[in-house]
Amino acid sequence: MTEVITAVDAVDVRFPTSLELDGSDAMNPEPDYSAAYVTVRTSRGREGFGLAFTVGRGNDVQVAAVHALAPLVVGLPIADVLADMRGFSETMTGDSQLRWLGPNKGAIHMAAGAIVNATWDLYARREGKPLWRLLAEMSPTQLVSLVDFRYLRDALSPEEALDILRRAQPGRAQRQRQLLDNGYPAYTTTPGWLGYTDDKLVRLSKEAVDDGFDLIKLKVGADNESDVRRMALAREAVGSDVRIAVDANQAWGVDQAVAWLESLAPYEPYWIEEPTSPDDILGHAAIRRAVAPIRVATGEHCHNQVMFKQLLQAEAIDVLQLDATRVAGVNENVAILLLAAKFGVPVCPHAGGVGLCEMVQHLAMFDYVAVSGSTDGRVIEYVDHLHQHFVDPVVIRNGHYVAPRAPGIGARMRPESVAAYRFSTGPKSRHARWWVGR
Amino acid sequence: MTEVITAVDAVDVRFPTSLELDGSDAMNPEPDYSAAYVTVRTSRGREGFGLAFTVGRGNDVQVAAVHALAPLVVGLPIADVLADMRGFSETMTGDSQLRWLGPNKGAIHMAAGAIVNATWDLYARREGKPLWRLLAEMSPTQLVSLVDFRYLRDALSPEEALDILRRAQPGRAQRQRQLLDNGYPAYTTTPGWLGYTDDKLVRLSKEAVDDGFDLIKLKVGADNESDVRRMALAREAVGSDVRIAVDANQAWGVDQAVAWLESLAPYEPYWIEEPTSPDDILGHAAIRRAVAPIRVATGEHCHNQVMFKQLLQAEAIDVLQLDATRVAGVNENVAILLLAAKFGVPVCPHAGGVGLCEMVQHLAMFDYVAVSGSTDGRVIEYVDHLHQHFVDPVVIRNGHYVAPRAPGIGARMRPESVAAYRFSTGPKSRHARWWVGR
Repeated sequence: MTEVITAVDAVDVRFPTSLELDGSDAMNPEPDYSAAYVTVRTSRGREGFGLAFTVGRGNDVQVAAVHALAPLVVGLPIADVLADMRGFSETMTGDSQLRWLGPNKGAIHMAAGAIVNATWDLYARREGKPLWRLLAEMSPTQLVSLVDFRYLRDALSPEEALDILRRAQPGRAQRQRQLLDNGYPAYTTTPGWLGYTDDKLVRLSKEAVDDGFDLIKLKVGADNESDVRRMALAREAVGSDVRIAVDANQAWGVDQAVAWLESLAPYEPYWIEEPTSPDDILGHAAIRRAVAPIRVATGEHCHNQVMFKQLLQAEAIDVLQLDATRVAGVNENVAILLLAAKFGVPVCPHAGGVGLCEMVQHLAMFDYVAVSGSTDGRVIEYVDHLHQHFVDPVVIRNGHYVAPRAPGIGARMRPESVAAYRFSTGPKSRHARWWVGR
Repeated sequence: MTEVITAVDAVDVRFPTSLELDGSDAMNPEPDYSAAYVTVRTSRGREGFGLAFTVGRGNDVQVAAVHALAPLVVGLPIADVLADMRGFSETMTGDSQLRWLGPNKGAIHMAAGAIVNATWDLYARREGKPLWRLLAEMSPTQLVSLVDFRYLRDALSPEEALDILRRAQPGRAQRQRQLLDNGYPAYTTTPGWLGYTDDKLVRLSKEAVDDGFDLIKLKVGADNESDVRRMALAREAVGSDVRIAVDANQAWGVDQAVAWLESLAPYEPYWIEEPTSPDDILGHAAIRRAVAPIRVATGEHCHNQVMFKQLLQAEAIDVLQLDATRVAGVNENVAILLLAAKFGVPVCPHAGGVGLCEMVQHLAMFDYVAVSGSTDGRVIEYVDHLHQHFVDPVVIRNGHYVAPRAPGIGARMRPESVAAYRFSTGPKSRHARWWVGR
């Protein structure tokens, strides 16, 4: 009997993080970090785990989107799927009826990403490798075959992608050893949530430096005066050698962003993240021209590779912040890494949320070993919450992500956590329901 | 007792249009035209009707997205809502948790649009006016207050918007009479679906000219040789005085679009619609530079006002094709009409689907009376199916939309149609299920 995909399950998991204001920023005052948690199962009992991250309400819509895609892949022979992961991805992203809900954006695109990632998890488990190694040990030709070039060719051809990967091939083994020995640089957002008091900000900033981080991040954008005060406090706490990035989470219009950053400039922000609408490519480019040498960073809400292509073509960003669950999974992220390499822009992935650190480290490490070949100016976001719910939680040592050795992509949650936080019946998820009745 | 919103209902309605290949194009070979059909109800028994159009599978996700938004507005006093329609819209589009599913795009954004539109329908019914008149009789200040300028100011300030509306004020009454007398120009897509035979294409093209249309549209993009043949047949059928637009429905990459259009150029396409990914602003701009004098048109998948802003800033389009249900409803479409007027680009709305003709005519007519003040180079798409399911179906006379006089926005469906095509229990909707089991 051929081994086929027999089920794509999705569970609505919600953590009541709004109770602690972890994760609070200018646009997300009270998030309940959540996940549409996906399991792909085969007829021989194999499993793969993925998820789409959301911030609470609407996680049920995300689950519904996964269920809408499931009939497209249930029944497919798993060997055929793993041999053609691009085709598998396109079965979902290219479905002529479902793509109307995007196309290639929003809940339906993230749902495809969760299923694609769960299937990569299954693939990596079958090979007994962490995802970063599975990818980093593929040939340039195999890697290029993962990418859908339909809308990319004017910026990146398959031949150029092949060249990039071939140039990085000689140093792969050495970089893999380097990664296993020293890990990958991290930065921390832990001190800077908008809901924290000044005292907590200062204390956590100092702790971050003590823990070996040389880049921290502050949320800004709700109140200018308060941002100036907090930035001054943080700068005083960490000294002049530690970089401080700021993140406005889309709070501003273009001109407003420029004015606000002028007020923060004396404290030397390293980058400004999401200064305006994530869709505003030309707006980001205008802001970048106006605020240099402050770097412009975005990506966690950048919904697909066509948007990243344009951010690069328009010279709108200095830092590309891909996300593990916003786009259609590993395949699209491989495309994004190749685009970034083509344009020479460093990738500093977005993380935090639910399981994003666990997943995204694989993409950055693959990038280092087999694509860009460098960690210069590159750093993975780190936030220290919710890791206890994962079977293979990230390990941070001296400001670095320790390279994972366990097979898979890192998205597998502990069954007892899924049971406890399953919305709305899990005993610990009900606190996420504060919103009912406004 | 204050009159409040008591319910937001959404019904999954699907028409099995795939059986006839009506609506077939390069990316939508077998659509089942569908709608998440929304009713907003108040405590005094008032109702308003709206919908989000989809093409079949995934309509359940669209319904789930409407249900996710409903708790945000149920309980609101309707007088407050109608006095601040922008605030009402932002209650949904700005919800800090639900916006993660977009932001401002995809299923959750279309769901907000359906509820906003249903509430405008209720508003117009209360005033006893068709939507186009309700809007066209508002003061410039009232109209500007409908728009969220947060991300628009670098292209359009509230003051500029006010100027545009004030300049159009003197001629309002005269244009309203003109509209009631002569209607608004239409074009027809009926002859050109990709699934039709050559004979049917030729016959329907001739009929369109006989019916008074001077612009028809052909779907292209699946097969180059066949497109050249069909374009030649259509040109021969309609003669040199009738314009033929072509629509690739996103089938091409940038360079491929340019090459394909070269092969069609001898038959003088009037515009090329959706030549590539709807997200590719810079790609549309590049195509436009290469294929002039063929016009570039897009918009039906353009997911919000920030994207339209950039299409205009980048000089990427000659024709702006707004859609009644893709963005967050009437408020966002008023913003888009103002942006188009600022940049001097004609708006030719996308229609067809389910109820899109019925709804979008109001926006074009409002534009004529109170914004652009012109029908030059402007035309509303017309497709002649599914109108029988609406209480106030559009009327086409001599190639023109007859200005509607019934109160509302046109989205109200006949109850017997909703019952018959309710998925999956309605007796006529079950044919839309052809896809189960692939």
